[in-house]
Amino acid sequence: VQRVRRLLARRSVRRADGAFVAEGAKLLEVALQLGAEVEAVYLAPEAGPDAVAVAERAGARGVRVFDLAPGVLGRVADTATPQPVLSVVRMPVPPPDVLVGAGFVVVCADVRDPGNAGTVIRTAAAAGADVVVCAGTTVDPYNPKTVRASAGSVLRIPIVVDVEVRSVLQGLGAGGVRRLGAMAEGGRGYDEVDWRAPCAVVLGNEAAGLGPEVGDLIDEQITIPMARQVDSLSVSTAAAVLCFAAARQRSNLQPMTAPAGHRATPQP
Amino acid sequence: VQRVRRLLARRSVRRADGAFVAEGAKLLEVALQLGAEVEAVYLAPEAGPDAVAVAERAGARGVRVFDLAPGVLGRVADTATPQPVLSVVRMPVPPPDVLVGAGFVVVCADVRDPGNAGTVIRTAAAAGADVVVCAGTTVDPYNPKTVRASAGSVLRIPIVVDVEVRSVLQGLGAGGVRRLGAMAEGGRGYDEVDWRAPCAVVLGNEAAGLGPEVGDLIDEQITIPMARQVDSLSVSTAAAVLCFAAARQRSNLQPMTAPAGHRATPQP
Repeated sequence: VQRVRRLLARRSVRRADGAFVAEGAKLLEVALQLGAEVEAVYLAPEAGPDAVAVAERAGARGVRVFDLAPGVLGRVADTATPQPVLSVVRMPVPPPDVLVGAGFVVVCADVRDPGNAGTVIRTAAAAGADVVVCAGTTVDPYNPKTVRASAGSVLRIPIVVDVEVRSVLQGLGAGGVRRLGAMAEGGRGYDEVDWRAPCAVVLGNEAAGLGPEVGDLIDEQITIPMARQVDSLSVSTAAAVLCFAAARQRSNLQPMTAPAGHRATPQP
Repeated sequence: VQRVRRLLARRSVRRADGAFVAEGAKLLEVALQLGAEVEAVYLAPEAGPDAVAVAERAGARGVRVFDLAPGVLGRVADTATPQPVLSVVRMPVPPPDVLVGAGFVVVCADVRDPGNAGTVIRTAAAAGADVVVCAGTTVDPYNPKTVRASAGSVLRIPIVVDVEVRSVLQGLGAGGVRRLGAMAEGGRGYDEVDWRAPCAVVLGNEAAGLGPEVGDLIDEQITIPMARQVDSLSVSTAAAVLCFAAARQRSNLQPMTAPAGHRATPQP
């Protein structure tokens, strides 16, 4: 249980241990469904029948399930109203060549808010991106808040961590991946971009955006045109618009929909 | 100051008073820029020079500016780290016929989370929607958390409040507005929809989605195709994808970009 508390609290502990905590029955269910390596499950006395059932399914697959004594959960968990099931899950390690040959990459460059980063990961997974890169001072994707906001998608898509922004952009450029920097204004309209060639959308810090210090490593600045004098979108909203623009053109989604760019007129 | 505290805390007070609180210098700046009716500004001693400058601009326009005594801010404000400028702003009242002739409407049906609702409002404004409707048990858009998440867009776009979901959907249908219900699965691909005819995207509750009780008032169910076994998107992410799909087809945005649906192939 001490391990769970430390895994929730500290990035350095998560890195050293190679594991993180998934809170709640829903996330355990996702982990089992995706075949993630679940090391241990901790079950609080307040767990309802659904949560107990998921923990039992984990147990049936050989996962050790521990019962927590009354009152222990509140001292361990990250939130004020903690989930009664805590699972220790091995951090998936993407293969070292995961960025080689990638068709669509999402790069978080100094995205600091755990909720934003988690939502970006969930969006990138849903839009069929190949990899998410959490670069620079971006929050740790295995932070409990990020895991929650990702709704389990930290387990669905390969995530590259602990890399500098400049070095990952240099590597992508050298690999022939077009680096598209998301800007609040002044860039090319995002829907005029060809998203079918290998590309990476680069999302900057919530307050500062993409800094000039990476300007030489961006191939094209792209912008979402906005109405009503709105001057910016949140990084997670921008990610949703851009990632699904890529998804439409790349038409790599199930169920298949014909991308809009290939029709003369919208269907009635 | 008591008024500010009560306006922050209670929807009923906001309705009776016809006003709400915008926290922070940035939101005051937006309110002044948009010509919103600012009734009073409260300035805490910890306000920095930028915040003081914005308050002075408000004062120059005839807004009463009050200095808060040390320590008062913390007792009044909604957050643990309160903004040193609090502005009382008149709630914009949309004209009664705001939904008549609307081309693109966003309906929140029982959206409960203030952050989600605020992000939807910000997205709808940026995508050039005509109106947002906060229907049923949807959180009050003038809740301080929603105002913050909207980044001031509660002042940018007309918002209809205090209406039942069924009655607003009935009214939209009677007015010839096509009601498109966002569903996690099973609906028509969102990009196959003709968004140029008058339409309303209807977003359901975060947990339950759009209930069957409104099924007879939805003209078409629409779905965002997803990859990697992702089973849902957050309501604010779905709103981003859907509203900007509408924006592209309706091409009502500045700067103008040609909507993808009108091109045979994407530009290089």
